[in-house]
Amino acid sequence: MKKLINKPEDVVIEAMRGIEAAHRDLVRVHYNPNYIVRADAPVPGKVGLVSGGGSGHEPMHGGFVGMGMLDAACPGPVFTSPTPEQMLEASKAVNGGAGVLHIVKNYTGDTMNFEMAAELARMEGLEVAQVVIADDVAVQDSLYTVGRRGVGVTVLAEKIAGAAAEQKRSLTEVAEIARKVNAYGRSMGMALTSCTVPHRGEPTFSLGEDEIEIGIGIHGEPGRRRVPMASARDIVGMLAEPIIKDLPFKAGDEVLAFVNGMGGTPQIELYVVYNELAQILNGCGIKITRSLVGSYITSLEMQGCSITLLKLDDELTRLWDAPVKTAALRWGI
Amino acid sequence: MKKLINKPEDVVIEAMRGIEAAHRDLVRVHYNPNYIVRADAPVPGKVGLVSGGGSGHEPMHGGFVGMGMLDAACPGPVFTSPTPEQMLEASKAVNGGAGVLHIVKNYTGDTMNFEMAAELARMEGLEVAQVVIADDVAVQDSLYTVGRRGVGVTVLAEKIAGAAAEQKRSLTEVAEIARKVNAYGRSMGMALTSCTVPHRGEPTFSLGEDEIEIGIGIHGEPGRRRVPMASARDIVGMLAEPIIKDLPFKAGDEVLAFVNGMGGTPQIELYVVYNELAQILNGCGIKITRSLVGSYITSLEMQGCSITLLKLDDELTRLWDAPVKTAALRWGI
Repeated sequence: MKKLINKPEDVVIEAMRGIEAAHRDLVRVHYNPNYIVRADAPVPGKVGLVSGGGSGHEPMHGGFVGMGMLDAACPGPVFTSPTPEQMLEASKAVNGGAGVLHIVKNYTGDTMNFEMAAELARMEGLEVAQVVIADDVAVQDSLYTVGRRGVGVTVLAEKIAGAAAEQKRSLTEVAEIARKVNAYGRSMGMALTSCTVPHRGEPTFSLGEDEIEIGIGIHGEPGRRRVPMASARDIVGMLAEPIIKDLPFKAGDEVLAFVNGMGGTPQIELYVVYNELAQILNGCGIKITRSLVGSYITSLEMQGCSITLLKLDDELTRLWDAPVKTAALRWGI
Repeated sequence: MKKLINKPEDVVIEAMRGIEAAHRDLVRVHYNPNYIVRADAPVPGKVGLVSGGGSGHEPMHGGFVGMGMLDAACPGPVFTSPTPEQMLEASKAVNGGAGVLHIVKNYTGDTMNFEMAAELARMEGLEVAQVVIADDVAVQDSLYTVGRRGVGVTVLAEKIAGAAAEQKRSLTEVAEIARKVNAYGRSMGMALTSCTVPHRGEPTFSLGEDEIEIGIGIHGEPGRRRVPMASARDIVGMLAEPIIKDLPFKAGDEVLAFVNGMGGTPQIELYVVYNELAQILNGCGIKITRSLVGSYITSLEMQGCSITLLKLDDELTRLWDAPVKTAALRWGI
């Protein structure tokens, strides 16, 4: 295992220290329990957005903390849910009196712990709502999930709900926006290679020299099938078709097209993928009106990509375009 | 070789098509000769900034085209210089009447072709200046270079000179700013793994299972030495010490600290590296006042990192902070 780390057990805390040192203008970092909050938290009268999950998916979620997106992120150990205590303390730290929204990726540990944190927070008088993201069309149940897994749509939901919260909309309204993003978005991913969790020291799964996995999960959970290495064109077809059919996306729809790298994928390949996706959507009469290309929800050094489509309407487009100022996404300010 | 591509010979053009499809608001893409220009080029009365080099280092340079940074980028084949014709046509496309500055990484093919392009452009009546970036302290001469290689400082020079050009400063002044960034900046990189050029199909070099290369070049050119796998702390020490000693950076200096991923490096590791770097600089009394963490000058899917330090003064800091709107760097607008 070759990684730029010290001791495997210190990776998460040392990365948090790195975030703290690099982004003092954006965030404060709290240790034990571990969470990252907006430098100006709590913002009075604003719904506080809290997310979190296992580490190893950076920049998600810590890189999304800041004006117009998350108020706090709770990083767990690599590929392992954070604790209810982290979520509770983060919720209290961002409570500006308008309630707190938990945006949760659909994995059993995450949903259970966020449920528990919400109950504890309510006992302390906080108003808490929860939205679960479950956008991965690859498989129904999975290694760590009942129902669909939460993947790329999480990034979009955090941005869009974050913009709604910034407008001081109510907790009910902000939660409704996040649910709408989940309802309108679909994703699917694939892997060229596996990844290695630091404290395990060996690859999570193995793929042959000429083999790829279609429908991979962000923790290396099994996908739909393993197939021989294929062209970008064929791979994008294998991802886009199930996504389009699922919602379904139809001719005339306007979409945000998000091509995501899994962590070890060079950007030149992401643009090759984007080119294929744009051609497929064009052929279906689906119009890309917004796009995002980069590695935003990753699986350590895994090579591969995922595709997310989000059907846009005027409201979602306006919220997507609203200013955001975080380490990983920033525009308009 | 597992990559998200179609035919190796089509990678660059298809990635350009992807950039065109994803970033119509920022850039126009010209084919044959290949270059990427600002959507609003030429900007009257503004010095036009042109850069370029082999592909495979994305987002450099195409991701840096836009308001406040480059006016045009010329992508060559993977790890191969673009042609004088590309550079000439790009220069003409961005000439707003105030002259054109070529920002060139110090590699023999690039400097030779940019020299030739400058001569051709002058014959057509353009005013052209050239700044060569040569910031890599690892080695003096190298596989493709006489003198020092141009690496991470290129990103900073393009941003800072871009801001100066946006203020409508003269060609002489903008070139002087770029030279100052080159004079005040130093870099060094390392690799955990090699990378594979698509049309070659096999790794550029090989490293043992427990071996890393200190001082690697961005095309896999040999570095200073191969050493056994080490901790992030020791690796950052091996990079930071020669950088600090070279300028030298001294107690009391204010610096921009740039931790760059080589393309296949997960972001969590870059923050572990940043944390180590921040501690070393703190121990030397060198104050980090600006930072950049991410994969901005890459070597395809190579795993590893580079560190760049740039000594800042008020002028460079103000220009760094100025608004920028490109696919890869964006703030203030």
